Amino acid sequence: MCQLLGMNCNVPTDICFSFEGFRRRGGETDHHADGWGIGFFEGRGCRLFLDWKSSISSPVAELVRNYPIHSTNVIAHIRKATVGRITLANTHPFMREMWGRQWLFAHNGDLKTLPGLSGDRFLPVGDTDSEHAFCWLLERLHQRHPKGAAAEAVHATLAELAAELAGHGTLNFLLSNGEWLAAHCATRLHYIVRQAPFGRAHLVDQDVSVDFDALTTPNDRVAVIATLPLTDNEQWTAMEPGELVVFQDGQPIGPRR
Amino acid sequence: MCQLLGMNCNVPTDICFSFEGFRRRGGETDHHADGWGIGFFEGRGCRLFLDWKSSISSPVAELVRNYPIHSTNVIAHIRKATVGRITLANTHPFMREMWGRQWLFAHNGDLKTLPGLSGDRFLPVGDTDSEHAFCWLLERLHQRHPKGAAAEAVHATLAELAAELAGHGTLNFLLSNGEWLAAHCATRLHYIVRQAPFGRAHLVDQDVSVDFDALTTPNDRVAVIATLPLTDNEQWTAMEPGELVVFQDGQPIGPRR
Repeated sequence: MCQLLGMNCNVPTDICFSFEGFRRRGGETDHHADGWGIGFFEGRGCRLFLDWKSSISSPVAELVRNYPIHSTNVIAHIRKATVGRITLANTHPFMREMWGRQWLFAHNGDLKTLPGLSGDRFLPVGDTDSEHAFCWLLERLHQRHPKGAAAEAVHATLAELAAELAGHGTLNFLLSNGEWLAAHCATRLHYIVRQAPFGRAHLVDQDVSVDFDALTTPNDRVAVIATLPLTDNEQWTAMEPGELVVFQDGQPIGPRR
Repeated sequence: MCQLLGMNCNVPTDICFSFEGFRRRGGETDHHADGWGIGFFEGRGCRLFLDWKSSISSPVAELVRNYPIHSTNVIAHIRKATVGRITLANTHPFMREMWGRQWLFAHNGDLKTLPGLSGDRFLPVGDTDSEHAFCWLLERLHQRHPKGAAAEAVHATLAELAAELAGHGTLNFLLSNGEWLAAHCATRLHYIVRQAPFGRAHLVDQDVSVDFDALTTPNDRVAVIATLPLTDNEQWTAMEPGELVVFQDGQPIGPRR
């Protein structure tokens, strides 16, 4: 299995603090050492850092930790390979363009069967069940909304599709198009919304604290989504199995199940 | 205008030496300071580093310089913005998936008019003429070969399409699917093939030399393609305007027109 980390904010925010704890689960505090990746939306642009090395030993992870990239939507993943070899092509998040926007997807779980792709608009490059699932989700979204649609309609379709896909196996995933971020829980996914009054947070995976009050303005709002809580002195919300929550501007605008 | 750098090899090779000279043109020895990017194919996987900062000041460029990523196909670009704002979405190389492979594209030049896209399979995310041109190329390749085709057939179609697209303006470009790398020259593009016996090379943009003989095996072969030669003691081949050359396993397998 793997672990997921997502962030959705109302103003561009860096993820250095959360990533610092998360990356330690890639070979230090946990065993997800078969590659990792993180994608940052900046406006319509998206930059994706991938490495097949573990996030605790990767020079790319060191860069991400030290270079504060400000983004409103971030998806990260550390991999414990189950289906598919340890190669770059099998490293999450996966990225595709649809409707003139980039989409990022990362998955934690196993699909026992794969739903068929009816076309060739989105084809997997690697050999993971996860990338196949991403291609299937985009294909079906595109079939239902060939020209795109309002966010609410896309979210409703996504909720239907996620429920159908979840019938094939374990499906915790994060999906974002740079405007919003959807989180689907099958087994384990937690989130927290940080907003004023901000306090101090302390990492689970390392003895590091940050005082968000000193780093934020009163209007900032940040949602962080993770397989397991990243801090040990804050209240994280455990998502329910089968629940899909869509985050926009740093808060849940769903749930949509 | 911008500058292009490409590498195609028969064994995975790092591009640190060439990139060291090339990145200096992004704000130090030349004025291409409006963002930069580099994409590395590793097997079917592709990792793409993008930054809207100049390549001489970017922490990501510092990482690329110091982290020897071994790849058989690399495309890099430093940007002097002409069409489109300085944003991540307008930063080359652009990446799309087609036929179950990733494709990278970077462009140097200006298109005065843009050929229409007839479908929505590949849509631009940013607002450059370059990304539009890339989408058009892929759309037309896909129309001609809906299921993909042998490399020779794809190259022949690509040569036709490049000639048509070149009618719209200045079109120097690099395109790769991870198996081969195509270079199209409109105004300026040079290449060199390095193979045994290897010698010493000295950068134009910085007083740095490397002895390739000490770093290679006798069977290695590396083609480097750049807008302007990167070294001052080797013989680079100037491409002809309108010429398309396809490189595979470190050597030209074209030209094709």
